[in-house]
Amino acid sequence: MRDIYHDELDAIGSLVICMAKSVAVAMERATAALLDANLQLAEQVLGGDASVDALRNEIEERCFQIIATQSPVATDLRVVISTIHLAADLERMGDLAHHVAKIARLRFPEHAVPGEVRAVFEQMGEVAHSLITKVIEVVDGRDVELAQAIEVEDDSMDALRRKLFTIVLSDRWAHGTEAAIDVTLLGRYYERYADHAVAVARHTTFIVTGERAA
Amino acid sequence: MRDIYHDELDAIGSLVICMAKSVAVAMERATAALLDANLQLAEQVLGGDASVDALRNEIEERCFQIIATQSPVATDLRVVISTIHLAADLERMGDLAHHVAKIARLRFPEHAVPGEVRAVFEQMGEVAHSLITKVIEVVDGRDVELAQAIEVEDDSMDALRRKLFTIVLSDRWAHGTEAAIDVTLLGRYYERYADHAVAVARHTTFIVTGERAA
Repeated sequence: MRDIYHDELDAIGSLVICMAKSVAVAMERATAALLDANLQLAEQVLGGDASVDALRNEIEERCFQIIATQSPVATDLRVVISTIHLAADLERMGDLAHHVAKIARLRFPEHAVPGEVRAVFEQMGEVAHSLITKVIEVVDGRDVELAQAIEVEDDSMDALRRKLFTIVLSDRWAHGTEAAIDVTLLGRYYERYADHAVAVARHTTFIVTGERAA
Repeated sequence: MRDIYHDELDAIGSLVICMAKSVAVAMERATAALLDANLQLAEQVLGGDASVDALRNEIEERCFQIIATQSPVATDLRVVISTIHLAADLERMGDLAHHVAKIARLRFPEHAVPGEVRAVFEQMGEVAHSLITKVIEVVDGRDVELAQAIEVEDDSMDALRRKLFTIVLSDRWAHGTEAAIDVTLLGRYYERYADHAVAVARHTTFIVTGERAA
């Protein structure tokens, strides 16, 4: 009984990692689509979102089946419930990559991102990638110390967002209101992406802490 | 055994309604704070968010206890898992009211919202209030037809948001980039609030459909 439970939980864990890797690729492509005004990459992100959503549904359904058939309690149950939350956060991160790609597509063949903020978005993309890479390691190895590093990187994403505002609100901003709106929304999407990475790390920390306490 | 289960589920249902009512008040006050540059109301919203978060934790913890002690299966289990999701959506709606109040406080004693877009935000506030009122009725009475009306109102929120963009991007916009950014973010917050109302309605529909099918 316990072995079936843990085998299935491992299988679900692999699906979570698979989902996180899809999200990582989506945000990497979305950032490249944005920085290079690359329509093809934007379309790839927009076309790929359904498979992330499908993975989330499968993870949730299998967690549901585990609860229904194995009746886990205490820490075991917390692991399953945390996995359901975690999949929801990853799905949302996929949605945010989708939103970034949508703005890139909307402005094509123009660049949505003017030259002055390009470097900031490049850094945001790098932080986003570093975050999801760490998320995958945390979920895979359940490394709590890495989870703390994720919180620090979330702070640097917030700092990058503040930098965007400084540039857009300076007197030298010559790209008008439409570009300011795009930059505002894009900044928000990267910030939320980082927030959800933190949420995934926290769910995982909770799983590990629970396991240690058990 | 079954009666304890349903009594506890009813009690959790009351907590959900209590949470939804707190969220309704928060967004109503946040909108008033925004439209009237009312600092006191903004502070009330910012101070009240913790109790919404606490309610969410209590709901999740009690759902968890139900699963651990009653081992519900099939539809009963779906109800509990849906309730966990539903509480997460309501918490996020509370966060969004918090974000609206924060912008109102940031710009005080000025109005964050220039005269031209005031009417649109007034309508967004009305739609938001109508949405959460319907959400409460749906959760309370599990009225699936009302859930469909929620989807229609979500469309009208999206239309209001597009109207905001039209105003901000018109040549007559004379309030500069900072106000444009505020309006963009505020529009996004109301839109997301409506999205989460739709999610709550969908979770409830799923519960009802599940019950009917059982």
